[in-house]
Amino acid sequence: MTTIGLCLEYDGSAYVGWQRQRNGVSVQETVETALERLLGEPVRLVSSGRTDAGVHARGMIACFESPRELPLTAYREGVNRLLPGDIAIREAWEAAPGFHPRFDARGKWYRYQIYNGTIRSPLVRRSSWHLRESLDLSRMAAAAAAFVGRHDFAAFRSSGCDAVTTEREIFAARVEGREELILFDVCGSGFLRNMVRVMTGTLVEIGRGRRPAGDIERLLAAGCRPEAGLTAPPQGLCLMEVWYDQGRPDGSEPSGAAKKLLDNPQTFS
Amino acid sequence: MTTIGLCLEYDGSAYVGWQRQRNGVSVQETVETALERLLGEPVRLVSSGRTDAGVHARGMIACFESPRELPLTAYREGVNRLLPGDIAIREAWEAAPGFHPRFDARGKWYRYQIYNGTIRSPLVRRSSWHLRESLDLSRMAAAAAAFVGRHDFAAFRSSGCDAVTTEREIFAARVEGREELILFDVCGSGFLRNMVRVMTGTLVEIGRGRRPAGDIERLLAAGCRPEAGLTAPPQGLCLMEVWYDQGRPDGSEPSGAAKKLLDNPQTFS
Repeated sequence: MTTIGLCLEYDGSAYVGWQRQRNGVSVQETVETALERLLGEPVRLVSSGRTDAGVHARGMIACFESPRELPLTAYREGVNRLLPGDIAIREAWEAAPGFHPRFDARGKWYRYQIYNGTIRSPLVRRSSWHLRESLDLSRMAAAAAAFVGRHDFAAFRSSGCDAVTTEREIFAARVEGREELILFDVCGSGFLRNMVRVMTGTLVEIGRGRRPAGDIERLLAAGCRPEAGLTAPPQGLCLMEVWYDQGRPDGSEPSGAAKKLLDNPQTFS
Repeated sequence: MTTIGLCLEYDGSAYVGWQRQRNGVSVQETVETALERLLGEPVRLVSSGRTDAGVHARGMIACFESPRELPLTAYREGVNRLLPGDIAIREAWEAAPGFHPRFDARGKWYRYQIYNGTIRSPLVRRSSWHLRESLDLSRMAAAAAAFVGRHDFAAFRSSGCDAVTTEREIFAARVEGREELILFDVCGSGFLRNMVRVMTGTLVEIGRGRRPAGDIERLLAAGCRPEAGLTAPPQGLCLMEVWYDQGRPDGSEPSGAAKKLLDNPQTFS
């Protein structure tokens, strides 16, 4: 048995999320089915985490034990031909024995995209949250900076989150405007369920002036979910990248884009 | 009767194109139906041009004679509620009597987007042409510059194009790389059928090294369609903007983005 690592990109619009579920088609199930067609045997993927229904990924990491010795291109080109257009395997590699995409992850980068225009935008409707009210970008950027560091994120998670510890480290958090789009980029050691979406919902309330700019510090200290903002909708969220100490030959270091973010955690342009 | 001008954005993926056709649902028909539901009377739109099946728009301009006196917000917010998610009216205004979106247009800006990566990208599959072979960007940018000026574009059009004159003026043409994306922006007085798609197909062959870099000049002089490149697929193309001498209160001048393009026609970064 060989451990094969995979880096996946997907448009999550049509799926119930990454993880297999009874109420619809998941990304995991779709990729496992394609791998099974290639290999002729059952395959079970282990991933770096889950994404909710409607959430996208540019760099989800997963691995599986392959019962057959195939050239790596078979896991990439071969499987891509068996996958629908909204999922693709970007890379496949032979991982070190014992590689675990979740436990070995050193950091993750998520991006949340807001479309801040008067009129809804057909062209970014599947990849952004549409907000009509004008948002104060510099206020949001300053507030986002307060996420950086090691904190208890108990206030910033789904009420259904059952993580034992709620302490996480945020390496970088940045809010940036690009014409009518607002991008919230956040890198951290790990994330609780819905964490980025609750962070985004809270930043938006600060940007609207409905919360004091210094509210993030208070929420981190209080740790009370009902006091934080609403959960931003899924379609604006994208898992951009996961990086590792080991186990992923070309992904042990964050990419150029993620490194730039980590080097300039709170740049606002 | 009042002439109402409209600026429309749409994701063309699901349509047979702008113009009404028998073989499927068009953008024009969908917008006319929504306006008819609002106004209770038949409406016929006149547009700044057509877009082919699968082509998108950020700023298609159209107008119609409204049989009723309604506040302009009704034509925007009201109609947007009646339109599907992939079409939106961005602006509505009272146009000068006799305004004609096609005859009065002074310039148009089109963008063609190429995804130049080894693996197909699920996230941009509906808005780009996927090309695996690596393209020489600076070669393409230099070649694109040859389009600028007044030329006979007979070589760069659909074989089914029945325009009487094939002379057009290109104000700016620019090729720019953004990570794995290549953007070809072109502004001109007007465009023949499939003109931007044939220009793109020809530039791509130059970028692949299959044509000499100076081939554009030769093709413009020869005016022979079969000698130009293939027609790039529709989903990479977007009508970004149309501007006017008059008749469109806030659109008489190109927008900031189009102006930047016109001021730096061949910048390559």
